[in-house]
Amino acid sequence: MNAEIIAVGSELLTPHRQDTNSLYLTEKLNDLGVEVRFKCIVGDDLEGLTAAAKLAMRRSDIIIFSGGLGPTEDDLTREAVAEALGLKLQRETQLLAKLEERFAKRGMKMSANNAKQADILTSAAMLPNSLGTAPGQWIAGKYDGQERLLMLLPGPPYELKALFENECIPRLRARIPAQYIATRTLKMAMMPESQVDARVAPIYKTYTDVETTILAGAGEIQLHLRCRKDSQTDAEARVEELAGKIEDEMGDAIFSRKGETIEQIVSYLLQMRGMTLATAESCTGGLLAERITSLSGSSRYFLGGAVVYSNELKTQFANVPKALINQHGAVSREVAASMAEGIRKRCLSSYGVGITGVAGPTGGTEQKPVGLVYIALAGEEGTQVVERNFPGDRKRIRQFATQQALEMIRRALL
Amino acid sequence: MNAEIIAVGSELLTPHRQDTNSLYLTEKLNDLGVEVRFKCIVGDDLEGLTAAAKLAMRRSDIIIFSGGLGPTEDDLTREAVAEALGLKLQRETQLLAKLEERFAKRGMKMSANNAKQADILTSAAMLPNSLGTAPGQWIAGKYDGQERLLMLLPGPPYELKALFENECIPRLRARIPAQYIATRTLKMAMMPESQVDARVAPIYKTYTDVETTILAGAGEIQLHLRCRKDSQTDAEARVEELAGKIEDEMGDAIFSRKGETIEQIVSYLLQMRGMTLATAESCTGGLLAERITSLSGSSRYFLGGAVVYSNELKTQFANVPKALINQHGAVSREVAASMAEGIRKRCLSSYGVGITGVAGPTGGTEQKPVGLVYIALAGEEGTQVVERNFPGDRKRIRQFATQQALEMIRRALL
Repeated sequence: MNAEIIAVGSELLTPHRQDTNSLYLTEKLNDLGVEVRFKCIVGDDLEGLTAAAKLAMRRSDIIIFSGGLGPTEDDLTREAVAEALGLKLQRETQLLAKLEERFAKRGMKMSANNAKQADILTSAAMLPNSLGTAPGQWIAGKYDGQERLLMLLPGPPYELKALFENECIPRLRARIPAQYIATRTLKMAMMPESQVDARVAPIYKTYTDVETTILAGAGEIQLHLRCRKDSQTDAEARVEELAGKIEDEMGDAIFSRKGETIEQIVSYLLQMRGMTLATAESCTGGLLAERITSLSGSSRYFLGGAVVYSNELKTQFANVPKALINQHGAVSREVAASMAEGIRKRCLSSYGVGITGVAGPTGGTEQKPVGLVYIALAGEEGTQVVERNFPGDRKRIRQFATQQALEMIRRALL
Repeated sequence: MNAEIIAVGSELLTPHRQDTNSLYLTEKLNDLGVEVRFKCIVGDDLEGLTAAAKLAMRRSDIIIFSGGLGPTEDDLTREAVAEALGLKLQRETQLLAKLEERFAKRGMKMSANNAKQADILTSAAMLPNSLGTAPGQWIAGKYDGQERLLMLLPGPPYELKALFENECIPRLRARIPAQYIATRTLKMAMMPESQVDARVAPIYKTYTDVETTILAGAGEIQLHLRCRKDSQTDAEARVEELAGKIEDEMGDAIFSRKGETIEQIVSYLLQMRGMTLATAESCTGGLLAERITSLSGSSRYFLGGAVVYSNELKTQFANVPKALINQHGAVSREVAASMAEGIRKRCLSSYGVGITGVAGPTGGTEQKPVGLVYIALAGEEGTQVVERNFPGDRKRIRQFATQQALEMIRRALL
């Protein structure tokens, strides 16, 4: 079965806002074995919306509207669907009473325009929305001889998600032939996409029944595997087999096979080994600490660190000798190593990380161009430093540098 | 004039990828006085694409396709537009020669499928693409008696932007009646959206010729003003007048009027006053330092800081007395103040910031629930501490806390 998602709202046609509900809906629909074939974004405009609804009824089995169910004049999804399907809108007195009660509870009188949120399409099932005022609506019927499933959902993401999860998924499950889908996500750090693809494409191309997608970010490659079969066992067996072969090829370059982030993997490994971490960052300005502490519970293995932007602080917080900075410059292999060792000593942590480089766009020289970063890891077994020339803008260079640091920690803990 | 953007590519119908080209295109089209009325996302599917093209030709003056111009079998935009408009595709021998040359230069033989990138629609102008292999195409003509402008652009954002900027905007300017648009963006920190709207709505509602949009993020409200007139002077005068009245109402709650971020404003103010900053962060884990150092040149006023997750490091790096932590707890007004004062002293900076709190989702107690954060600012004139209970998840709480800190620095510098 194929689905179409229609996001409604003029704000989604400005340069400032983007429809994100469709990403969530696509994931859930795919899990049910439904492919999304079209996405449309339409403003608060009755004619445009009605035309979009008519077109969708012709070409898609499942049609999901998000947004346009509020109380204002601009909220026209109900009216447009009524027009497109030749249905009437009926004001539900019970629902109206509930709306009035909701306002009364907060000591407010309901304004007249709110009443339209109690308008339900004839033949539609009302989907209760405990998180907001506008209920969802569900229609299942034949149009031009074709079975169609149509959902009207509110636009705010938390309302839409709750409604789709609780009300729509069970209804869809009851109507869609059971599909069995297995997925795997394999992630690798600090490898070029072309190199990964050259090695894994000959493998995944022989699995024509497993869909393989490669996504590349700054210092991270993700392989998404998806297989659909008549039984869950068959689907799992196929992705497992392919994932296994890819793992044989790529070895421990793969840091995660269940979608975990590299921060999570580093967190598991540190806790498993009972080890701790401290960081001294110059050009990444706290991004590494921020990424590590984005996980709840990180205080169990992350002691803290220093953002040592000035040379004085490199000495004060990370014990870097002044003479070393004078001799080699703040951006150097030697200073990175000294930062890692110094912060490890100061924090009494198992590992210490030091990062120094030129994040740009200014501050580069011929000898030390923008993108040059030294990343050091100090531990009981000694200190390693890598030198990298990262491409891209300031943000990307900082992302790359912290990714490299996390990958070095991970490899040290293997 | 109204525009429609059709983003082409099956990867844009997965949960992993989103069309972002349309945000850039919308901004540029709006600047030309063109409104975007529809956005569609269509997979690599000839039938679906052709239907989308036909519908767009009926309802929109300007139609922009992004993507689907590459060399693979899946790249079908050219074929779909030819079909929808009843045009033929012609292989341009000059273009073909250039493509072959491009491959030869890199020592590669061009595979046969690449030749389709030299297919140009009859009646189309070829738009040279210096950054990639597929050229853009431009068609201006009458369809069903209506003037239509149609553009085929490559999907990779940097190619699309260069082509649109260099080739499409001048052509659009020549055909669209000159429009004069003035815009202003006013930003405020740490105020609830409802409170801002209650104060500014009575003002902006009297300016029916200025479109006002409110966007709300974690600790930030943005007011976007846009006015279109027959002359630039008139348009500027109207937004200027409205912006002025809003500024009179909101006073120095407005931190920026030209779209600058609060990090940028704090940067300007610190440099103007010749002052410096240092930070000691617990629950924000380096996010404040990361935000400040996201700006190039921040080393001029940001000395550095410490991420003092453990109690020991609060003492070691920010001089917080052990007894103070024992007496009040790490999450307390007193410890926040001590962190701010200690880091200021240690770094010899004009200002010191201390942040301690419970970012959650775990670690909350009845007395100190998730979301409770103390933010302190220490300067020559003394130390101020605010206590806040921020809503939302870990990420949002950390964003709120750093926004509060930046707003306190800004106000101290006014």
